[in-house]
Amino acid sequence: MKGCSIILFDDFETLDAFGPVEIIGNISLFSEEDIDISFYSLSGGVITSAQSVKVMTQHITDIKKGGALLIPGGYGVRRELDNEDMILFLRSIVEDVDHVLTVCTGSVLLAKTGHLDGRRATSNKMVFDWVTEQGHEVDWVPDARWVKDGKFYTSSGVTAGMDMTLDFVKDTFDMETAESIAEYMEYLWNKNKYLDPFYKVHKG
Amino acid sequence: MKGCSIILFDDFETLDAFGPVEIIGNISLFSEEDIDISFYSLSGGVITSAQSVKVMTQHITDIKKGGALLIPGGYGVRRELDNEDMILFLRSIVEDVDHVLTVCTGSVLLAKTGHLDGRRATSNKMVFDWVTEQGHEVDWVPDARWVKDGKFYTSSGVTAGMDMTLDFVKDTFDMETAESIAEYMEYLWNKNKYLDPFYKVHKG
Repeated sequence: MKGCSIILFDDFETLDAFGPVEIIGNISLFSEEDIDISFYSLSGGVITSAQSVKVMTQHITDIKKGGALLIPGGYGVRRELDNEDMILFLRSIVEDVDHVLTVCTGSVLLAKTGHLDGRRATSNKMVFDWVTEQGHEVDWVPDARWVKDGKFYTSSGVTAGMDMTLDFVKDTFDMETAESIAEYMEYLWNKNKYLDPFYKVHKG
Repeated sequence: MKGCSIILFDDFETLDAFGPVEIIGNISLFSEEDIDISFYSLSGGVITSAQSVKVMTQHITDIKKGGALLIPGGYGVRRELDNEDMILFLRSIVEDVDHVLTVCTGSVLLAKTGHLDGRRATSNKMVFDWVTEQGHEVDWVPDARWVKDGKFYTSSGVTAGMDMTLDFVKDTFDMETAESIAEYMEYLWNKNKYLDPFYKVHKG
């Protein structure tokens, strides 16, 4: 894998981005590959998460083709859904990368580009009704911690993104690398994508 | 709780800091309190995590008294152990805050200040032998996901810090707030501090 580009915007959910970054950033500890991790935003410069983390980003025009693209969710998603520049940029860059990972409502931004039309995907369970309204052509899966369809990995809320990213590492590298990273993080990896306890919690 | 100050240094472990930040940063969703989260470093300015996240920090002289102090671990800890300015600063600020949380080898930095002498504490299980060599007067607990002793919460590696921080929220606010945050994060909280699967993994 060439590298991982993370798209940030104000009020992104902190762990949606940094859970997967912790995992992908530690692949180099257990494999030959040293993966470049870079952060991008529409404006470049400092982006502030919903939990007050100020992160330095590069301008999106500097983004590299290939590798993986990560789109977090969070309250900022609602603003970005009406941001034509963001949607146009995402629509274009998705065609130029090998893998796309979304966490929580990041899949709603991806759905807005049209790339999920006709595909299976999931998202945050607390706001699932709102999610499905944002992409009528997407086959939204309510009862899954994460979903893989082609090059697209979409996860449920926040920490589901960590389980999904470990699964992505398993698919892209191997199970040993994924398990080594989980062990390094002392993380109890929920490996079963169809075991989604929060589906029932929020079903109504 | 007045606020939460996070101490950063180059090569800190990304999730050691941002797992707890995700949790503390969402307390305001489920309680009356809007907790100020601020990041500090010895130099101020941009600090880069071991997984390439560039975070804006304030200079430590701007740090506020009271509230909680969070010290992450990571490869950078080994450098900071020999940094007299860091140890002197930590030794002083620990006396001025209400709660101290460390994740992974962050407890080794705290041990170096002497504040853990005679207290129970834990740390990363992969390097536990090295950890115990750094603080001979500390009662290091090998078989615990996290330990609470007085105002000090010390956790095992990386994601153990999230379980510990939820326990801290339970103690400082209440169980409902902690469980609501875990549910919001779709996180399967490991509530039992004495259930530490990684103790056995790394014992031999």
